[in-house]
This record gives sequence, structure tokens and C-alpha cells, in this order.
Amino acid sequence: MGEPVYAKIAVVGCGLIGSSVVRAARESGVAGRIAVAETSPVARERIVALELADAVFEDAAEAVADADLVLFAVPVMSMETAARAAAPGLKPGVTITDVGSVKQHVAHALIAAVPDTAFVIPGHPIAGTEQSGPDAGFAELFQNRWTILTPQARDDAPYREAVARLSAFWSGIGARVEEMDAKHHDLVLAITSHLPHLIAYNIVGTAADLEGVAEAEVMKYSAGGFRDFTRIAASDPTMWRDVFLTNKDAVLEVLGRFTEDLQALSRAIRWGEGDKLFELFSRTREIRRGIVAMGQESAEPNFGRDRGKH
Amino acid sequence: MGEPVYAKIAVVGCGLIGSSVVRAARESGVAGRIAVAETSPVARERIVALELADAVFEDAAEAVADADLVLFAVPVMSMETAARAAAPGLKPGVTITDVGSVKQHVAHALIAAVPDTAFVIPGHPIAGTEQSGPDAGFAELFQNRWTILTPQARDDAPYREAVARLSAFWSGIGARVEEMDAKHHDLVLAITSHLPHLIAYNIVGTAADLEGVAEAEVMKYSAGGFRDFTRIAASDPTMWRDVFLTNKDAVLEVLGRFTEDLQALSRAIRWGEGDKLFELFSRTREIRRGIVAMGQESAEPNFGRDRGKH
Repeated sequence: MGEPVYAKIAVVGCGLIGSSVVRAARESGVAGRIAVAETSPVARERIVALELADAVFEDAAEAVADADLVLFAVPVMSMETAARAAAPGLKPGVTITDVGSVKQHVAHALIAAVPDTAFVIPGHPIAGTEQSGPDAGFAELFQNRWTILTPQARDDAPYREAVARLSAFWSGIGARVEEMDAKHHDLVLAITSHLPHLIAYNIVGTAADLEGVAEAEVMKYSAGGFRDFTRIAASDPTMWRDVFLTNKDAVLEVLGRFTEDLQALSRAIRWGEGDKLFELFSRTREIRRGIVAMGQESAEPNFGRDRGKH
Repeated sequence: MGEPVYAKIAVVGCGLIGSSVVRAARESGVAGRIAVAETSPVARERIVALELADAVFEDAAEAVADADLVLFAVPVMSMETAARAAAPGLKPGVTITDVGSVKQHVAHALIAAVPDTAFVIPGHPIAGTEQSGPDAGFAELFQNRWTILTPQARDDAPYREAVARLSAFWSGIGARVEEMDAKHHDLVLAITSHLPHLIAYNIVGTAADLEGVAEAEVMKYSAGGFRDFTRIAASDPTMWRDVFLTNKDAVLEVLGRFTEDLQALSRAIRWGEGDKLFELFSRTREIRRGIVAMGQESAEPNFGRDRGKH
């Protein structure tokens, strides 16, 4: 266990991500004391039963009292409400961050909701699973994954010191940390995360509605590719609704590109242009190799889900 | 080891699927002797080095001599050439099958290429990984996966006996076997396999070409969803080119549905219709649960690729 980076942290919202931060912070020793605020009574009961935190509150203002870091881990469109609820309890000089998948919207929401004495540094760990709730979290979720911080455009020493400390916190729980402009973040994530989710949700919906093919057949013969999409399409509906509503411009932009490319591919199929298909299908292999080489994916076939079989 | 279902089998084409059939047939004892035909000298060398078969040939006609079952495991558009090469060596009453992902096209190709005395029973195991070649195969690939047979519309006793025997062969190497009309197969697979591959190839291409986001960033931050698509988009380019060219009608049909649905989703985002998004995102979770319940997918989060971490 290292030296605590913060004497006390408060995590507001304790689902998959929030509870993983709590577990990781405790295991690594980067936080002295840990308080949790959670509005759901069912989730609160689980957090208590799992003994995740030193104290569990319904009221965010109580949880954040004396905290040096407050981390909001609620759906993007709930950030402002959660921050307003916490505001009365915040101490001057506190660092405020979050784990939302959209950064421009959340930056505005947090800055509007908390006092000027707080250092607002929005953040986003690129990690997760298709599961939800405090039972789904685990301490190793952020290991070797990237966390992107999108600090405000200010370079005064106290703010930069707060950024450095938050970065040390994430490093302490295993993440690799990068700083980025919030607008660029929202575009990068639109293509690497938001569009993949949109498409996965869409194809699963299309398959469910297709006349001539029973839903049971779709499930039964899903091992040919479809099942990989259903994993993503099993993600939390509220979280993802909020992402699409708050990152509308970037999502519609990349969706437009995707649709254009898909029309070209459709035309190549219709006209039997095998060379065009082959060229694209060869090029995409390289990207996979790059991701594996960067340590962001298992090199095992089928994600290793057949592991142990051979 | 059970009683051999066939005294001798010949596998023409020995990549991921062909070599997996060979390995599984040998381990399970469903084949007495196993001959392999492979036109690639590099692959032939690997097959010999791995000691996969009793005999390895360049010429398909030599490999199929005396065989009771000949299984073609080459890309869909190479089926006819491979079958014509094998034809002079076929013995009367031999069963001819294949593992191609498109069934109407392959049925026509095989029936045209082999003598009338052969029993042609097209087939398709719904199994695979993103890897290719004889080294990528493994005996357990078909365990608990479905193999679809698309027999011709004939019910004479010798033909039905041949179908029953082929079914016993697939069951013997661990597969669950279903019979289906070839046209229906091509529609079911268009939605459960061909469209997912097309979309995965397309989004990986779109991401690679997007101005404002570097390819390195796409790879680095791929854990938010994108990396799952790259697995599928790393599949064999020749195999997939052939699938789209030979199952054009069904693919364009389901692609049309997918695009229509995507336009509606795009419109819902543009107009901020959160309820519509939430409704779709909730519905798709159920399909995932169905697939897991049917034993066609790992229930572990992230496909279990974080397994061992927690």
C-alpha cells in the first residue's frame, strides 16, 4: 500500500464504475477514508453488505463533508443534479471529478453546480463491462486501461497541482493517464465507443424485428458474429441514452461518415466489386493487430472465451 | 473413441475450419483414415509438420480416392473449382459436403461439379475464430455449436441414410445438428453473421479514415467498445469477400432493414427523443440473456477476457 493521495474521497453514485473506483482505491491505499453517496436504497443495501466503504449516505452533501476529492459516477445527465446536491457539503479547495463518457456537457454541468473554490477536472476511464450495479464492480477494472482527464484551460499553480494529484490517484489504481481537450475527447469517443454502441443496439433491434427469422433462431445461431454485438447492446440503457443525447453533434457526425461508407460497401456488393471488398477487409486486420500490440485487447482467438478448451 | 462413422474421409482445404474438422475427427474416432488435400505449399508443409492427417496431397483427386465422405473447406467461390478437381477420384456413393457460410450458391456449385452417383449434402458449422490457417484450428471448435445441414429436396432412402450418417459424423465431433432449407439458411446467416461482419469491417474502415482522430488514438482508446468490432473485422478477407458476393440478395435485404432502423435512431438522437432510445436499449438486453441461456455465449462480463483478474 502506497501513501494516500487523498486523506478522504467521496464517490457519488456507486454502480459498476463507482464501486470499482472504491474497491481499487481501498486495495491500493490511494485514499485514506472513503465515503459513498447513493440514492438507490437497493444499491445502498448492497454497498453496506459488501462492506465497500467507510461510510454510506443517501445525501451527497453529507458524504462529501471534509473530502479532498469528490468523484461523480452517475449517468451523464444526472451529473448536475448530483453536483448540486453535494455542493452545500463541499469544502473549499476540493477537487471535483467524474467518470462520464461525454466531457463537454459534464464540464459545463459541474462548473455550474459547485462553488468557484472547487477545482473541477472532468475525467473518463475507458473501461467497463456490460454489467451494472455495485456487485458488478471489481478493483482491477482500470488496470492498464486509459483514463482521460480534460482539465479546464487554466494554468494557475493550484489548479495544475490539483490535476497532478488526480493523475496520481488514477495511476495509483492502475490506470494510464492522458490529458486531452474536452471537445477532442468527445470526438475520439464518438468513434471508439459511442458509435460502436449505437450500431450494436441497432443491429440487435433489427434482428429482433426481422420477419422470416424467429428470435430463437437469431439466438441459436449467434456464434457466427452476432453474439459479439449483443454484449455491447446489453450495456446500461440510462447511461447510453444520456451519452447520445449529450454528445449529439459528434455522434451524428461520425454516424454520417459510417452511413456513407456503408452505402459505398452496399453498392460494391450489388455490383459484385470483389476487389473493393477484399481491399477493405485486408486493411481492417491491421487495426486489430495494432490494438493487440498496444495491450488494449487479448491476443487470444475469440477473446479467449474458448480458453481452457485447447 | 467411438466406432468410425466413415472408414475414410478426405478434407479438401485445410485452414482454420478444415484443420479443426481433421483434428476433431481424429480425436473422436469418427473417421478411420483421414486424407487432406491442400493447394497451398506453405499450408501443406504445416499440415505435415503438425502430423494432422494420414496422408497429405496437392491433388484433390488423389486425396478423395476411396473416401466415403469428402468435405470441402475452401472459400465459397472456390468450391466449384475444388469439386471439379476432386471429381475424377470420387467413388460412387460417396457423400459430398462442405463448410461454406452460404448454402444456395454452394449447393449449385457442388451438384454441378460431381457425378450424379454422389450424395451432395451441403453443410455449415456455425463456429470459427478471427484466425486463419492450419495452425489456428483446434479439435474443440465445434463443441456445443450448431452445424446446419441443408439437404436437397429428395427423400429416397439412400439419400436420407447418407444425411443421417453425416449428421452422426458432426454429432461425433461435438456439434449439435439441425436441418434447414438452403434459402432459409442464407437469410438466417445474413442477419446473424454476414451483416455483423459487414458492419464491423465498415466501422473499422470509417474509424481509420476519420480526419481529426489519429489511427493511434482509435487503437489506444478502443476498450470503450470499438475493439470488439475489430475482432470480427480481422477475419479472413477472401472468405468474406466470397460470402458477400454469393449471398448478395439476403445481405442487401437485411442491410436495408438495418439502415432504415439506423436512420430512425439517428433522427431520435437529433430530436432528443430519449424515451425511444431508452426503449430500444432496454429491449436488446433480453436478447443477450437468451443467447447466454442457450449456451451459445459466455455469461462472464467482457467475454471473460478479464478472467483471472477478479
